[in-house]
Amino acid sequence: MSHNTFGHLFRVTTWGESHGPAIGCVVDGCPPRIPLTEADIQPWLDKRRPGQSKYTTQRREPDAVKILSGVFTDADGEQVTTGTPISLMIENVDQRSKDYSAIAESYRPGHADFAYEAKYGIRDPRGGGRSSARETAMRVAAGAVARKVVPGLTVRGALVQVGPHAIDRARWDWDEVDNNDFFCPDAGTAAIWADYLDAVRKAGSSTGAVIEVVAEGLPSGLGAPIYAKLDQDVASALMSINAVKGVEIGAGFASAALSGEENADEMRMGNDGSVRFMSNNAGGILGGISTGQPVVARFAVKPTSSILTPRRTVTRAGTDAEISTKGRHDPCVGIRAVPVGEAMLAITIADHYLRHRAQVGA
Amino acid sequence: MSHNTFGHLFRVTTWGESHGPAIGCVVDGCPPRIPLTEADIQPWLDKRRPGQSKYTTQRREPDAVKILSGVFTDADGEQVTTGTPISLMIENVDQRSKDYSAIAESYRPGHADFAYEAKYGIRDPRGGGRSSARETAMRVAAGAVARKVVPGLTVRGALVQVGPHAIDRARWDWDEVDNNDFFCPDAGTAAIWADYLDAVRKAGSSTGAVIEVVAEGLPSGLGAPIYAKLDQDVASALMSINAVKGVEIGAGFASAALSGEENADEMRMGNDGSVRFMSNNAGGILGGISTGQPVVARFAVKPTSSILTPRRTVTRAGTDAEISTKGRHDPCVGIRAVPVGEAMLAITIADHYLRHRAQVGA
Amino acid sequence: MSHNTFGHLFRVTTWGESHGPAIGCVVDGCPPRIPLTEADIQPWLDKRRPGQSKYTTQRREPDAVKILSGVFTDADGEQVTTGTPISLMIENVDQRSKDYSAIAESYRPGHADFAYEAKYGIRDPRGGGRSSARETAMRVAAGAVARKVVPGLTVRGALVQVGPHAIDRARWDWDEVDNNDFFCPDAGTAAIWADYLDAVRKAGSSTGAVIEVVAEGLPSGLGAPIYAKLDQDVASALMSINAVKGVEIGAGFASAALSGEENADEMRMGNDGSVRFMSNNAGGILGGISTGQPVVARFAVKPTSSILTPRRTVTRAGTDAEISTKGRHDPCVGIRAVPVGEAMLAITIADHYLRHRAQVGA
Amino acid sequence: MSHNTFGHLFRVTTWGESHGPAIGCVVDGCPPRIPLTEADIQPWLDKRRPGQSKYTTQRREPDAVKILSGVFTDADGEQVTTGTPISLMIENVDQRSKDYSAIAESYRPGHADFAYEAKYGIRDPRGGGRSSARETAMRVAAGAVARKVVPGLTVRGALVQVGPHAIDRARWDWDEVDNNDFFCPDAGTAAIWADYLDAVRKAGSSTGAVIEVVAEGLPSGLGAPIYAKLDQDVASALMSINAVKGVEIGAGFASAALSGEENADEMRMGNDGSVRFMSNNAGGILGGISTGQPVVARFAVKPTSSILTPRRTVTRAGTDAEISTKGRHDPCVGIRAVPVGEAMLAITIADHYLRHRAQVGA
Repeated sequence: MSHNTFGHLFRVTTWGESHGPAIGCVVDGCPPRIPLTEADIQPWLDKRRPGQSKYTTQRREPDAVKILSGVFTDADGEQVTTGTPISLMIENVDQRSKDYSAIAESYRPGHADFAYEAKYGIRDPRGGGRSSARETAMRVAAGAVARKVVPGLTVRGALVQVGPHAIDRARWDWDEVDNNDFFCPDAGTAAIWADYLDAVRKAGSSTGAVIEVVAEGLPSGLGAPIYAKLDQDVASALMSINAVKGVEIGAGFASAALSGEENADEMRMGNDGSVRFMSNNAGGILGGISTGQPVVARFAVKPTSSILTPRRTVTRAGTDAEISTKGRHDPCVGIRAVPVGEAMLAITIADHYLRHRAQVGA
Repeated sequence: MSHNTFGHLFRVTTWGESHGPAIGCVVDGCPPRIPLTEADIQPWLDKRRPGQSKYTTQRREPDAVKILSGVFTDADGEQVTTGTPISLMIENVDQRSKDYSAIAESYRPGHADFAYEAKYGIRDPRGGGRSSARETAMRVAAGAVARKVVPGLTVRGALVQVGPHAIDRARWDWDEVDNNDFFCPDAGTAAIWADYLDAVRKAGSSTGAVIEVVAEGLPSGLGAPIYAKLDQDVASALMSINAVKGVEIGAGFASAALSGEENADEMRMGNDGSVRFMSNNAGGILGGISTGQPVVARFAVKPTSSILTPRRTVTRAGTDAEISTKGRHDPCVGIRAVPVGEAMLAITIADHYLRHRAQVGA
Repeated sequence: MSHNTFGHLFRVTTWGESHGPAIGCVVDGCPPRIPLTEADIQPWLDKRRPGQSKYTTQRREPDAVKILSGVFTDADGEQVTTGTPISLMIENVDQRSKDYSAIAESYRPGHADFAYEAKYGIRDPRGGGRSSARETAMRVAAGAVARKVVPGLTVRGALVQVGPHAIDRARWDWDEVDNNDFFCPDAGTAAIWADYLDAVRKAGSSTGAVIEVVAEGLPSGLGAPIYAKLDQDVASALMSINAVKGVEIGAGFASAALSGEENADEMRMGNDGSVRFMSNNAGGILGGISTGQPVVARFAVKPTSSILTPRRTVTRAGTDAEISTKGRHDPCVGIRAVPVGEAMLAITIADHYLRHRAQVGA
Repeated sequence: MSHNTFGHLFRVTTWGESHGPAIGCVVDGCPPRIPLTEADIQPWLDKRRPGQSKYTTQRREPDAVKILSGVFTDADGEQVTTGTPISLMIENVDQRSKDYSAIAESYRPGHADFAYEAKYGIRDPRGGGRSSARETAMRVAAGAVARKVVPGLTVRGALVQVGPHAIDRARWDWDEVDNNDFFCPDAGTAAIWADYLDAVRKAGSSTGAVIEVVAEGLPSGLGAPIYAKLDQDVASALMSINAVKGVEIGAGFASAALSGEENADEMRMGNDGSVRFMSNNAGGILGGISTGQPVVARFAVKPTSSILTPRRTVTRAGTDAEISTKGRHDPCVGIRAVPVGEAMLAITIADHYLRHRAQVGA
């Protein structure tokens, strides 16, 4: 995994800046003969698309994906993958004309501005350039391909905390997730968040969030000791998402306070001859290898630093300054991180599915 | 990063089973002309070595490391690295003769047994085989080399939570860390842990823990967008350690409840012309790239499942069974994870130091 | 190096089929602040472009390259690289409408048809799909970027054999290379080739060729033992070009017949205090590491199998058949391999330059 | 592929210097449940072992390999691989005490001395250190494992040219290969080589050679476009062997002089319903992918520069000097390159077998 490529065998390389002519990715290593059209990808992009409620950034992009390579119509008339690299591209449309001179000269606290400049000695300040969350659109597009690689795999996600307000897990209902603006699985909490985020938005402030993603239907045996553990790569995948500051698997940080008796998931034989786990503190992974239980991961997203309140900073020239964000403003970037987290989990599992098939066979 | 290799340019490949003749690693990509003898490595291994207090496993290993390649005595009579692969080996001494037939036939809940068997169709049950924490000795050995790669780098760690008992951060004193059996930076909390762990040990139970590791003295600019972020690779490194279920950077999961005003670390020019951050919620990393602030990471270790209470499980043959651990028993594996976490952080930073030097120069 | 990516730190990922909407590549890992515009790339593409003489395929493509990401205008008003991935794209224009049903059903002998079908169970037959030499346009584009990475580097190439006719090396004149249709450094031989290729073309046949590429100005020290040798990666780079069947460095296969006395390049101190080699049988590489002498490599290109004479083959359905090429026909694909070989050598050296800088410093 | 690791999924990392305490390798990614004992590896090492005739170096090493990890005795009492890293080690025994001060101060022409020093600023001069052909013992050991990975695979090799004397291919007899000191498949030529090499040896000189390696029984479909071509990786594998200056596949450089009619291997359906190729100029590979025909590769080894005649060179201190080799002397290093070439071909094919299985399934 190097620079702008994620994955070892199912490899996703993304490119593009927020305000360049386009963004794109190359998906390499995808198995052949998988049905794939733009219609398989577009719905996931639509789910992530900004500007769909007042709680996310108002940038308006159709985010229409094009497949530029790697597919062909087979003898049955179906468009399928050919095993060659799949190039996906989205043209940038709404690069709103704007004066970037302020942020070109001052580093926004909490943004990547200072670090990019320290590393490269140059950065594209328009919309955050490469560090913009716009890049995550291509993760979602690649994730749509990944979802088709592992037979039987389902990957879902939900927002489980906004600011200090966590959901009531006892009321978790997957069907609720698409019924509100927050991918919230608990209708009651969704209402609380709506009020909370209205206040945050009006104050020109922002808040953090926690997202949970769950993969079901994957086989046991995915992952490998010692440095290709499935949970290790899930952590890498999720921590690579913009603004993420923490990742946990299964019981996660809470496991620190558990006893050995409480934590270990006991097993019994099921009536169908398969092994049943009596709990899932492991989050579906033991020794870095999937057990067949659902893989459960959570990640924390910090509040965006693009807020209306002026903050103290410094300039490229080395003087003290103040800066505040103008224009489009996103009170909770964690909302749109849900489909992105799903995509990264799907990509990681697809990659490990191919890796497992290499070493152990189908 | 594949299978048993960690790192991209500073590459560590480990091998060996708990009860095989030896364990070892190959460190490849280390810069030349770095002074290196076994005396540089042994003290870190001694710090990790089991059997040093009643709170860790009583397996007694001298863990004497040998350098088998990659060094030579230079013109000044000093043994230095040559740029070729450094092979390190520790012979296993205390593979206590024991009857492994029970765990060969039944899967210990919470252990890797079931998953290894599901993946490979075979496993070495003696002492956990490859999944044993014994492998982490080689991480510590490689970490000792990594510490010498980045000029000015210091990496330290501490235990910050045992079971439900977290330290009082206001009393953090790095000098305390070596004064107790727990790498605890707060003498008061160390005493609480001593009592708590005595009770856990006597009950034949176990408990989880949280470790914090801190790197200071690294330059800004380490890490790279989008899939080679420094925090992403720190998460990968720490999550690869046995029994780890969560990783966070800087404010971590707590950042979900912060506002944008609280979270973003403001900046001012220092008197020496360098940029000063007024807080470190970012944990030293913005946009995946180091800012020059200390890199701060925490990780949660679950309680070991090796407990004396019988637990429900299944056998390889597909029948229900019960299993409990006999013999050596480790009430809090998190203690010994401190030097391992330090080593993984050092390795990750050394790797990124070389990567940065590649793209941007010294 | 995996699938469609070449290089370890200077990484080139290409995508696209001959008759798809576009072809492209992503160059990742390029150092920042290198001046780069489309005008730096286009001339190399123009050199490779088909249809420039009667000796190459008559497909007519403007091959106009677009830079879609990874550059920005710096404070001095110059467009430079930013250190983020550089996406390059060429739209396909001359995908001549043609009936591909014959080659969709029968495997052309000597082409990749049979092998792609055996591997993937599907292939895009239009113009050879992914196996078309059209992909090499992106190698040339990426090579243009690579040329700018290593200070002082010059990479040149020439055709040194066409069919049975080799050049007279005593008359090698680099200035001649651009004076004929063959990149031939010897005007006398160019005339012989012109006659020879006229006959080949009229006969509807084809012929092989040998290309020599030379890199000058690279520093000593590039390459690394044991499996990252510079000559190893040059061999990999050149053998990856379509239709290449052999690669040699320096004296190459001829060294098998030399004595130790003849082969070893003796050394003397130059007046300027640098080491002078008295010959270059090594081709600039010893022990896999550059010595500072010019790196010299040659590669053999087989004759294309697209000929007008019917050849015996089999069909997908498993019956015997005959097939011959219709339409555009390229009597010597080796000619256009010259700029491609240059590009691959430049990319390999740029990659090793960054790798060297990582391990040893600037 | 980086530094001292070869292979992508079947990964071999070697370590060790000629005169260090030991040499070794780690084979990572090997499938589980493959029977493997030291007795599977030792015969291949014995074949390569020096000192078996007067035509190879007289260093006498038992080269006894030890398996240190990655195997376990299964339920049937057979020792098999477990899927975890296989560590192999050979202790160095015959590091003859010798004065290395001359070659520590002067660079031997044609050796890696100058290049290593230029790169690293330090080198281990004892026996050539890391650049010694001693490293190839571990390639042979790893190759023995690789041979067991691909069902039905046979890899054989032969010496086909010594100095100016090539074999008569019409008299090729694989059974002859083990009947002479040269791995020569043609008894008549073996006698010529014996005389020739006697003269070379007595003159204190050396000569080059060409080796041919052939893999049979591999499936079609191995290899992948565009930068993971099987022939590309074979070229990389063979060029990584010490002293190799050229590699060719199938008709190789001779294909440059062929016509399209002569070169393309025609096909017919066999009586058994499989495709038969009527020739094998392709060397079993089309478009970078195996066709199922035998994979045929040749590589040229230069004469060793360790000769008794003094040669002009320079010293580390920057003065002109002369140097000649004393002691053990190897008139044709190409002989022992035969088992090494076989091993590298086997490793490359095993790696691609796993890669293919990943993308396309078993």
